[in-house]
Amino acid sequence: MPTRQLHLGAFMRPVSIHTGAWRYPGAWPDANFSFPKIKRLIQTLERGKFDAFFMADHLALLNMPVEALKRSHTVTSFDPLTLLPALAAVTERIGLIATASTTYNDPYHVARKFASLDHISEGRAGWNLVTTANPDAAMNFGHDAHMAHGERYKRAREFFDVVTGLWDSWADDAVIRDVESGIFFDPDRLHVLNHKGPELSVRGPLNIARPVQGWPVIVQAGSSEAGRQIAAETAEAIFAAPGTLADGQTFYADVKGRMAALGRDPELLKILPGCFVVVGDTVAEARAKRAHLDSLVHYDSAIASLSISLGVDASRFDPDGPLPPIPETEQSKSGRERAIRLAEREGLTVRQLAQRLGGYAGLSMVGTPESIADEMEQWLEGRGSDGFNIMFPHLPTGLDEFVDKVVPELQRRGLFRRDYEGRTLRDHLGLPRPKNQFFD
Amino acid sequence: MPTRQLHLGAFMRPVSIHTGAWRYPGAWPDANFSFPKIKRLIQTLERGKFDAFFMADHLALLNMPVEALKRSHTVTSFDPLTLLPALAAVTERIGLIATASTTYNDPYHVARKFASLDHISEGRAGWNLVTTANPDAAMNFGHDAHMAHGERYKRAREFFDVVTGLWDSWADDAVIRDVESGIFFDPDRLHVLNHKGPELSVRGPLNIARPVQGWPVIVQAGSSEAGRQIAAETAEAIFAAPGTLADGQTFYADVKGRMAALGRDPELLKILPGCFVVVGDTVAEARAKRAHLDSLVHYDSAIASLSISLGVDASRFDPDGPLPPIPETEQSKSGRERAIRLAEREGLTVRQLAQRLGGYAGLSMVGTPESIADEMEQWLEGRGSDGFNIMFPHLPTGLDEFVDKVVPELQRRGLFRRDYEGRTLRDHLGLPRPKNQFFD
Repeated sequence: MPTRQLHLGAFMRPVSIHTGAWRYPGAWPDANFSFPKIKRLIQTLERGKFDAFFMADHLALLNMPVEALKRSHTVTSFDPLTLLPALAAVTERIGLIATASTTYNDPYHVARKFASLDHISEGRAGWNLVTTANPDAAMNFGHDAHMAHGERYKRAREFFDVVTGLWDSWADDAVIRDVESGIFFDPDRLHVLNHKGPELSVRGPLNIARPVQGWPVIVQAGSSEAGRQIAAETAEAIFAAPGTLADGQTFYADVKGRMAALGRDPELLKILPGCFVVVGDTVAEARAKRAHLDSLVHYDSAIASLSISLGVDASRFDPDGPLPPIPETEQSKSGRERAIRLAEREGLTVRQLAQRLGGYAGLSMVGTPESIADEMEQWLEGRGSDGFNIMFPHLPTGLDEFVDKVVPELQRRGLFRRDYEGRTLRDHLGLPRPKNQFFD
Repeated sequence: MPTRQLHLGAFMRPVSIHTGAWRYPGAWPDANFSFPKIKRLIQTLERGKFDAFFMADHLALLNMPVEALKRSHTVTSFDPLTLLPALAAVTERIGLIATASTTYNDPYHVARKFASLDHISEGRAGWNLVTTANPDAAMNFGHDAHMAHGERYKRAREFFDVVTGLWDSWADDAVIRDVESGIFFDPDRLHVLNHKGPELSVRGPLNIARPVQGWPVIVQAGSSEAGRQIAAETAEAIFAAPGTLADGQTFYADVKGRMAALGRDPELLKILPGCFVVVGDTVAEARAKRAHLDSLVHYDSAIASLSISLGVDASRFDPDGPLPPIPETEQSKSGRERAIRLAEREGLTVRQLAQRLGGYAGLSMVGTPESIADEMEQWLEGRGSDGFNIMFPHLPTGLDEFVDKVVPELQRRGLFRRDYEGRTLRDHLGLPRPKNQFFD
């Protein structure tokens, strides 16, 4: 049995990342509004022993032209921190990772909601700490313009310190509940944070006991210089976005190297690239499925996705020419870089690039259960990742196929658990429970 | 059968309002942290056909001296908007009312979370719109001092307009999901709010479809002049706090009169006083239970509760003298007024008043199922209320007794439903679904 084991998250945004997914035969077009259907999906993931259900978030409509937006099933979705508690109540073991922005939130609310989710789920919460780049979000929160990249990351770093400080408000043994003496908690085991920083001022303490996991698992997704550095300092899992194994290995070595330089054990961070998986009984069948799926993406959506990735309006480019030089903007840097490199690597025209991005242009594994397991093993053994955040091409069938065909193949190879061994998300990921920074 | 029917909410703060409840024989001292126990409580409420589970909230520790705080089981609790989705997943019909402050929240988050809860629960959400007076909360949200009473209510009124405007972002028929044409929604049926007011600037639209109920039910609890006026303008249910039937009738006539003056149908608002109910097989047994419960409240907690109600430090008063004159402060006005009137009405010393307040000093019904039903009928027929928010003295037994003994007596008299007739909280309360203000 191999010593290294895969960790698998399921990336649900809000149900499938693929723009054409809601039109695929057998799909549930209304799944984004249907708690019973999402419940069915997460219970299948739990049957497949996934580490976690991972939910992205947006604080505005996606900033794409309305002609594309009107074709997107991602246009509306549940708030992750409202959906995940409901999913906690209908599952037993699977981790629950919610995205929450540090740009347009108060740290007291964020600390409290994740602590509540961690208690309700008995230790299964994770926080995907992101900054918000969508300029439309700024206008939903009383700002005229969005925050610059550097400022967002500065606030994010301080926000992390405040939230983790609030989680440590209570020593693990602070709550006594001594019925006889009538003492509910020991005030000497309660810490007042009194944080006053350049961006945030928060007194504390938090009005909820320390989370079951000490801290919910800290997840991040940025791949910019600032994003990698904050991840090396603070993250316990990264949603990475390499396009190739070589990219993955470079990213893996870079972030784990930064950790070593900071004196942090590199094992304390699991790097999990997003991976779009299409399963067939033959490779040809899997490719045909993907082609069918991509054919359901309208060109209007495709060109809009390219515009989002690049941070510029791509509809003014020559569709049949090569991608022109794209200036850096305040938009998400990782998306721009990935699109430019994909076009270069495969020599794609603007139209071809748009069609790929309009479906899903990132890392994908399209093949048989065996070929997919081969690829995953190669990534794991080659130090390209510690597992993956799986994206299902269409729901529920793409998920059913993964759980019924790929998971058993990974289990046969000893690469993935046959059952949950622990109870918390930290148990699943092999992460220690953090000590309280204010109490022994 | 009487034409008027009682509406019953269950006020869970976070489990029992009575400070001594966690020490009562058979109580669950850890219920505030235990989702399985709270699940058991709400399932009992649903068995009793309650209209709603109602959860209070605090954005800081309660502002009481630490010697009292350390005896309070209310010191930590779940965030309501995280707990209620989990409870939605384990119930079918009961309404779910969460408190959320307009003082230290963004309206976009509030609109989105309640819309999500309403979709997840299939139309059972209610929003208890409050302002936050606790000065400690201000310091948890980057402010040096709390907002003045008038300013809080001005912001609350504008916040209501923004949240309800965001809920109406999507026409009820906006989401088409036409698989054939690939159109997910009709952009002509999406409204951009573009709100720019004195306190708030929010563009919209909301990134979630219109709630199942159109709007979640709007609940309020303020009894000040500003609180009554905003309730008359906007509320659909009020958590009222009269001490006597005469007080209740005055409040009822005042608020429903304000509605009539505004051209609002008074039937569109249900007035539900908080009511602490202790059930016995005889009146003497019920009184003995309450005396036992009150005896579990420590004097330190009692004097602290009095200080909170009055907004001043009551520990410096002569315990055995009468209550001295209390100046108005920026604290909650209703609590101060209630305490002063209770002391006057019953001629209580500071110590006696503190002991009553330390347990629960508001409206209470202590007796047999028959005597309690008599009292409730008197309130209903006398236009003192449209029902009650029941507070259970101790959990789970106080709740079990209410559901097993009082509810059947109310049903026998035709005052309360024998089963749910509708599916949504609006159905239970007899409230219409609001029309979308931007679309036919």
